[in-house]
Amino acid sequence: MPLFKTLMVIGPGLIGSSILRRARSTGQLAERLIVMDKEPAVLKRIEELGLADSVTTEPAMAEEADCVVVSVPVRAIENVVRSLSPHLRPGTIITDVASVRGELDSSILSLLPHGVEYVPSHPMAGTEFSGPDAGFAELFENRWALLIPTPETAPWACGKMQNFWEFCGARVKFIKADEHDRICAMVSHLPHLLAFTICDTADNLSSEMRSAVLDYAASGFRDFTRIAASDPVMWRDIFTANRDVLLETLDRFLRDVQSMADAIRDGDDDAITEKIKRGRSIRRTLIQNKQA
Amino acid sequence: MPLFKTLMVIGPGLIGSSILRRARSTGQLAERLIVMDKEPAVLKRIEELGLADSVTTEPAMAEEADCVVVSVPVRAIENVVRSLSPHLRPGTIITDVASVRGELDSSILSLLPHGVEYVPSHPMAGTEFSGPDAGFAELFENRWALLIPTPETAPWACGKMQNFWEFCGARVKFIKADEHDRICAMVSHLPHLLAFTICDTADNLSSEMRSAVLDYAASGFRDFTRIAASDPVMWRDIFTANRDVLLETLDRFLRDVQSMADAIRDGDDDAITEKIKRGRSIRRTLIQNKQA
Ligand SMILES: NC(=O)c1ccc[n+]([C@@H]2O[C@H](COP(=O)([O-])OP(=O)(O)OC[C@H]3O[C@@H](n4cnc5c(N)ncnc54)[C@H](OP(=O)(O)O)[C@@H]3O)[C@@H](O)[C@H]2O)c1
Ligand SMILES: NC(=O)c1ccc[n+]([C@@H]2O[C@H](COP(=O)([O-])OP(=O)(O)OC[C@H]3O[C@@H](n4cnc5c(N)ncnc54)[C@H](OP(=O)(O)O)[C@@H]3O)[C@@H](O)[C@H]2O)c1
Repeated sequence: MPLFKTLMVIGPGLIGSSILRRARSTGQLAERLIVMDKEPAVLKRIEELGLADSVTTEPAMAEEADCVVVSVPVRAIENVVRSLSPHLRPGTIITDVASVRGELDSSILSLLPHGVEYVPSHPMAGTEFSGPDAGFAELFENRWALLIPTPETAPWACGKMQNFWEFCGARVKFIKADEHDRICAMVSHLPHLLAFTICDTADNLSSEMRSAVLDYAASGFRDFTRIAASDPVMWRDIFTANRDVLLETLDRFLRDVQSMADAIRDGDDDAITEKIKRGRSIRRTLIQNKQA
Repeated sequence: MPLFKTLMVIGPGLIGSSILRRARSTGQLAERLIVMDKEPAVLKRIEELGLADSVTTEPAMAEEADCVVVSVPVRAIENVVRSLSPHLRPGTIITDVASVRGELDSSILSLLPHGVEYVPSHPMAGTEFSGPDAGFAELFENRWALLIPTPETAPWACGKMQNFWEFCGARVKFIKADEHDRICAMVSHLPHLLAFTICDTADNLSSEMRSAVLDYAASGFRDFTRIAASDPVMWRDIFTANRDVLLETLDRFLRDVQSMADAIRDGDDDAITEKIKRGRSIRRTLIQNKQA
């Protein structure tokens, strides 16, 4: 028997449509799939792809769902939940897949009717592409899904969502919201910020430099840019929702950059090689762990 | 008939041994291969690999060479050339493969006897590995080899070295030294500096963060770290030899980072998405050019 009778996915983009594809291909997640989006064209595409039993632009259908996955940009989540709220039955699980917690959890909790279980989750999987055609059923395979229950989340709902992500192919970890945001600032948000910026810098320098970058990208630059193709609104939302933690992590990084710059300026050979060696050690461990 | 009668490679590491492998596999570069290194163990390995007709720790054999490739870290080049200099015959071509020009060219020119042709070159190809076992004959295939002749380099010698790199599989471009250093600062040296530093920052933060980085590297961090495994001495030399241009490029980048940080701090949505969009455009062009 599938985990849920009726699963509703709101925002069938990269993440949402990957969940839908997984649900279709394994049959383990739900008997019936409802898909909601604000754009009829997107819903039409979802129907063409055979990824929904019902599609809707209206939140009222949420009353038919046992589980609602809100897979829209971080700052759009609150409004979506507000519109859903009157239609949610007690016993329904609602989750988002937001890349940052920030203040989100308390706003969402304050919107939900009694008896609805909120289980924030964050699948640590993605690509630089977006939209309903970008998803694939294996996206979460062997990747982490972080579960970040609020103090009010019922254990049974955590258990269900653990099964949900495991059926998606992911490995599940429970984590606290502040720890989540600190870790994601370091492993994901800061790298994205730097990737967007280095592309911007190259672009600003001169047209000579722009074409040189395009010619010689393989020399190191290219590695920095894969993630820079990601969606602007999604990343604007992440950067602003994790503002304080991200800026603090950036400060740490800038202090380390400054210290490397000082060592180069002063010709302090030992300091330079020490920093390079320390930097290498994390990379080497990644290689040993076959994650590189 | 091969391009040179006798080719001498000094420093048979990643780059040097790739040239030797290419020479062996195509027969186009030289009839005879001499390899010099300061470490007898390295020379023994080169003999085991069948990559040399003669090996030596002594510079005297340079008198037998028509072309000498000095493939050692940037700041070791000058001393190597000083030791070779008394043994070089007029008509011999000497080249290095240094990743930065800086002050190198004038120092080398002042060391060379009359009639020896110096043709600085920089193959824009590499990996994060080093040593005689890291090389491979296809390393330069379809990559750029930049030729940076000095005002005193004879045209015939430029022509020979153009053939040399083309026989290695590379596409050749002639470029001025200062332009070379500015471009490489942007496409290669700055990305490496940031890659080493972000690994260092993660490592410095806490052991919790270190292990989180290892768990969740796939979320963006990993892309930044491939190049951070590269050799510390090679990079120390590059950073210090290109000091002024690198620090200037870093300053431009830091100003752009600061401006992104300000936009995030102020919640200036338009400024954030504008910057992200500008950053994406270079990446998109790379994808269109099939270089990504
Ligand atoms: N991409 C990743 O790497 C990744 C990884 C983990 C978590 N996440 C999180 O997953 C969520 C979705 O990201 P995604 O990559 O799947 O994005 P996506 O492919 O761009 O899909 C976003 C979906 O949200 C809808 N949407 C956008 N703005 C909306 C609004 N104001 N109101 C209602 N719906 C809106 C879009 O609908 P239309 O197409 O009709 O505009 C689309 O269906 C985000 O919260 C993101 O932080 C992303
Ligand atoms: N790797 C890249 O991505 C890349 C790309 C383009 C250009 N380059 C340039 O190519 C050159 C060589 O780099 P590589 O990657 O081939 O390095 P590598 O694999 O580490 O090889 C360096 C070679 O130089 C020798 N060497 C080191 N220090 C020396 C010294 N003080 N005196 C004499 N010989 C010394 C080493 O000998 P031992 O093994 O005996 O120590 C080794 O044979 C550098 O100038 C670098 O800037 C590198």
